[in-house]
Amino acid sequence: MMTVGILGGGQLARMLAIAGAPLGLRFRVLDVAPDACAAQFAPLIVADYHDTVALERFAAEVDVVTFDFENVPADSAQWLSERLPVYPNPHALAVAQDRLEEKNLFLELGMATPEFRAVDSLEDLQRACTEIGFPCILKTRRLGYDGKGQYRLHGTADIADAWAALGRVPLILEAFVAFDRELSVVAVRGQDGEFRAYPLTQNWHTDGVLSLSLAPAPQSEEVAALAFECAQLLADRLEYVGVFALELFERDGQLLANEMAPRVHNSGHWTIEGADCSQFSNHLRAVVGLPLGSTSARGVSAMLNWVGELPERAPVLKQARGYFHDYGKSPRAGRKVGHATLTAAYADVLAENLAELAAAIDRQAQIAPALAALGLANTAATEPRPGS
Amino acid sequence: MMTVGILGGGQLARMLAIAGAPLGLRFRVLDVAPDACAAQFAPLIVADYHDTVALERFAAEVDVVTFDFENVPADSAQWLSERLPVYPNPHALAVAQDRLEEKNLFLELGMATPEFRAVDSLEDLQRACTEIGFPCILKTRRLGYDGKGQYRLHGTADIADAWAALGRVPLILEAFVAFDRELSVVAVRGQDGEFRAYPLTQNWHTDGVLSLSLAPAPQSEEVAALAFECAQLLADRLEYVGVFALELFERDGQLLANEMAPRVHNSGHWTIEGADCSQFSNHLRAVVGLPLGSTSARGVSAMLNWVGELPERAPVLKQARGYFHDYGKSPRAGRKVGHATLTAAYADVLAENLAELAAAIDRQAQIAPALAALGLANTAATEPRPGS
Repeated sequence: MMTVGILGGGQLARMLAIAGAPLGLRFRVLDVAPDACAAQFAPLIVADYHDTVALERFAAEVDVVTFDFENVPADSAQWLSERLPVYPNPHALAVAQDRLEEKNLFLELGMATPEFRAVDSLEDLQRACTEIGFPCILKTRRLGYDGKGQYRLHGTADIADAWAALGRVPLILEAFVAFDRELSVVAVRGQDGEFRAYPLTQNWHTDGVLSLSLAPAPQSEEVAALAFECAQLLADRLEYVGVFALELFERDGQLLANEMAPRVHNSGHWTIEGADCSQFSNHLRAVVGLPLGSTSARGVSAMLNWVGELPERAPVLKQARGYFHDYGKSPRAGRKVGHATLTAAYADVLAENLAELAAAIDRQAQIAPALAALGLANTAATEPRPGS
Repeated sequence: MMTVGILGGGQLARMLAIAGAPLGLRFRVLDVAPDACAAQFAPLIVADYHDTVALERFAAEVDVVTFDFENVPADSAQWLSERLPVYPNPHALAVAQDRLEEKNLFLELGMATPEFRAVDSLEDLQRACTEIGFPCILKTRRLGYDGKGQYRLHGTADIADAWAALGRVPLILEAFVAFDRELSVVAVRGQDGEFRAYPLTQNWHTDGVLSLSLAPAPQSEEVAALAFECAQLLADRLEYVGVFALELFERDGQLLANEMAPRVHNSGHWTIEGADCSQFSNHLRAVVGLPLGSTSARGVSAMLNWVGELPERAPVLKQARGYFHDYGKSPRAGRKVGHATLTAAYADVLAENLAELAAAIDRQAQIAPALAALGLANTAATEPRPGS
């Protein structure tokens, strides 16, 4: 009986514990928050991630360590890795924590990226803006997520404000990419180096937070092979073990690598019901050394994030293949509190189900991009189907 | 946030808690055993089911009560039902707990059953044997499961021994049915009376314990409508809420009702991966008043019970749609410690996968009946496929 330790006790840890139960795994979660939602299903140690007394106790209770979020202090990951197996390894975690290191690695591996420059001074910023041009985005190199730690610049007049807002930490300036769409590869690499990728996922964000995913991404066959190759190059170079996501922009049929998330990823939540083996099960299989599971999709899936508060559950559950996920968190503006996945054997059935759901829960704006991508006119979302 | 109380903390409670987590449900489990395996994922109260102090505490912590096994004392269920909603209701539980009441109800509803007689004395037994003939089976009316509390009689010489073995409690004598196969209907009824049944499942037992299930049962279209009708009649009459199983014998195209299990059922475990909505999720949906989920099968599934000890996990997990369930219980002869489900889009693919698995884990005898039923020669199970 193996016990898996998870640093971070949010919804990802919660879904890992749920996925790991059938495999006979047990869990310990370490989080700073006593109400961490994973604690409803796994024993919780409440402590700061730097607290070596707590880490000592945690390490004594578990056989292997993994992460629910990427901003675990690198030295804590290192400290743990000197005592027991830690997956992904602290080096991979450190690279993925730093937007500059990450993008430099992308380039080194031959992957295209949006133009970027390191920014450590106001002068760096001014020079970088001249070289990259506007619009562009200034980001903290570390500790950013869900659009936090970012400032968009439209012209030289914004430089002073951007510097004032973010200038106290190491930064990166990135070109603003007028992309055609956002894609992600969710993939897994085992301890033996075996690599498997889920079908490409198309994503839409609202206010910097993932709102909607569609998988397999429509019309993505041509770019999929390149995306999987990039993901595998990256995973092999980092000697990565577990699930990760590579976020990509597609523009004129070209792919630009945006960032890597060294963990199970929101854009892979559809795999719980929409793939043979979920990203959560596959992450655990990799981490404990079991055979990787099939990453094949079962039909087509759409995932809707619930941000701030949950809608009614019934309209989702009434769909033949509608699945509701409540993370057991209290509502709060901007907080991810749950998601729903709809799956169907065919894209047109999925589009019809989504249109019905959009009307029933009044989420037309959130769902409309999926209908457009699936080829159903947006208007269908605003009118209930005859007989429904 | 609703909290569901479960009386009994075995694998069924454990799988209910896992299925309920995404719905945002929380759980409390009451069991006599401090190491009840559901306690790994839900808070446990250790107490006897008659302990009203513990029941009082349990009732105060939960919003609704359900069961993980049918032998909860009827008066405890009644006591709880006077304080909060209890599903299934205590009357349904009481009927299902008693083989005689259950069979009388089957007859009353117009369902065929194996011949049976109530036995309360040695004279009753002698008369019943004469009327029913040999072979026949003497069973305790209550508290039997997995073949326990049963005695098979082959002739008058066995009567004295059978009476000596079981004669201290109310009994029932049943004709031994030389059935063609065993089937079960797993079905769910909601608080509003909505009824849904999963496809018929074919079952095989070894030493009285379920060993193998196949769903949808091959060539079962003709008997399915009748089986569903019986299940719905039963559920409606009992005002049943939740999932239950009706076990049936098929003989010469006729169905005989054998017994009812007032809970999620081992023969429905395949629904976790093999149906749109699992029996566990559907039971909880019924119990908390959410819309029932689709009971449609996704392809074909085979479920293998692990009794006594677990086999290696890897050969199951290597199958593209192979799912391993470890209940987190310590091994013990005759104890259900886990199961595996294999699903496939087509019966011939499932048969090939099962044949591979049978060879890999040396479980040919357990798996052979499924191969025969799926139309693959038994010999295939004993020889690895070329290239595998």
